[in-house]
Amino acid sequence: MKYFQKELSLKPRTRGFHLITRDIIAALPELGDLNTGLLHVHIKHTSASLTINENADPTVREDFETHFNLLVSEEENHYQHTFEGPDDMTSHIKASLLGPSVTIPVTKGHLNLGVWQGVYLCEHRNHGGSRKLVLTLHGT
Amino acid sequence: MKYFQKELSLKPRTRGFHLITRDIIAALPELGDLNTGLLHVHIKHTSASLTINENADPTVREDFETHFNLLVSEEENHYQHTFEGPDDMTSHIKASLLGPSVTIPVTKGHLNLGVWQGVYLCEHRNHGGSRKLVLTLHGT
Amino acid sequence: MKYFQKELSLKPRTRGFHLITRDIIAALPELGDLNTGLLHVHIKHTSASLTINENADPTVREDFETHFNLLVSEEENHYQHTFEGPDDMTSHIKASLLGPSVTIPVTKGHLNLGVWQGVYLCEHRNHGGSRKLVLTLHGT
Repeated sequence: MKYFQKELSLKPRTRGFHLITRDIIAALPELGDLNTGLLHVHIKHTSASLTINENADPTVREDFETHFNLLVSEEENHYQHTFEGPDDMTSHIKASLLGPSVTIPVTKGHLNLGVWQGVYLCEHRNHGGSRKLVLTLHGT
Repeated sequence: MKYFQKELSLKPRTRGFHLITRDIIAALPELGDLNTGLLHVHIKHTSASLTINENADPTVREDFETHFNLLVSEEENHYQHTFEGPDDMTSHIKASLLGPSVTIPVTKGHLNLGVWQGVYLCEHRNHGGSRKLVLTLHGT
Repeated sequence: MKYFQKELSLKPRTRGFHLITRDIIAALPELGDLNTGLLHVHIKHTSASLTINENADPTVREDFETHFNLLVSEEENHYQHTFEGPDDMTSHIKASLLGPSVTIPVTKGHLNLGVWQGVYLCEHRNHGGSRKLVLTLHGT
């Protein structure tokens, strides 16, 4: 039975949806020690989020950005919390719609994702900077 | 301390929201061995998702389908990723709004859900086919 | 290796988004016993939900309420499941958009959240009453 935890600082990304599966795997050589378990990935921010979606076609990630900008539009005037600009409150709402963490099965030393699944960093701010993740791995 | 993991192939469901709590419990006789723990259920697809909601009235599940078709409408023309039809990109977006996994407390050999809670398979495609889950159970 | 689980009944809150990080920590003196682990918080209801977001400015939580009332409007007439009033079906949909549980890293006896992160109870009903949580803590 093992628990392993580490923090990972991602390089800054532009606003939008970005594949970070490789960043996570590269940070976790300990994955290979687990036969059966789970990986929890948590983002320590409230204006960026994590999800799992299609890992191949870049237009999927562009369409995510387009659609979330319609679902939570910066053009609307009902937001009070806009101290840091029009992308402030909208980023908080997008972050909770997608969520601050993902949990992924680990099987025989590998993330047991579907063949089309990848982990996305969802950067909702225009200038979000580096984002910090906490990776928690546990299993046998 | 135990970790137990298995894959479960669900029978194909029509587009919409479906209760699968019984499918999950039927696949997990090992639940009875745990006094305290968690069950993680992950779907290995990017156009179907999992959530937990009302387990009794079928109109709740119909209203979910209606409302998600408005939130992520196939009538809009801002999607690029529509190779597989108008239900292609919309399914990816719905999948991330709801999420690819649920984690459920296990108490004295049973899923510790509220009396009105059930696990939903959210099938966003017109012809999604059989969907694969990874069930990971751990606890004491 | 430890697993610890308890139920927590929250005092009733008004409709809207409420910080409950302190309620959770106050209920869990056992947090201090863990060096590395995870806390899973599950709400046993289908018309209230949990998320993690900004923990300082109350207008963030007011903007959440305003925006979710637009995303899932009580003014629309496509809902069938409205036996308990116009806030019935809309609450179920909001609950699944945000989700019934959060998982938080535990590090050296503390919740390892970002400095701006807090846990929200999202009360979607006009009169939701007391809500029950299941807290499951595990780690080393």
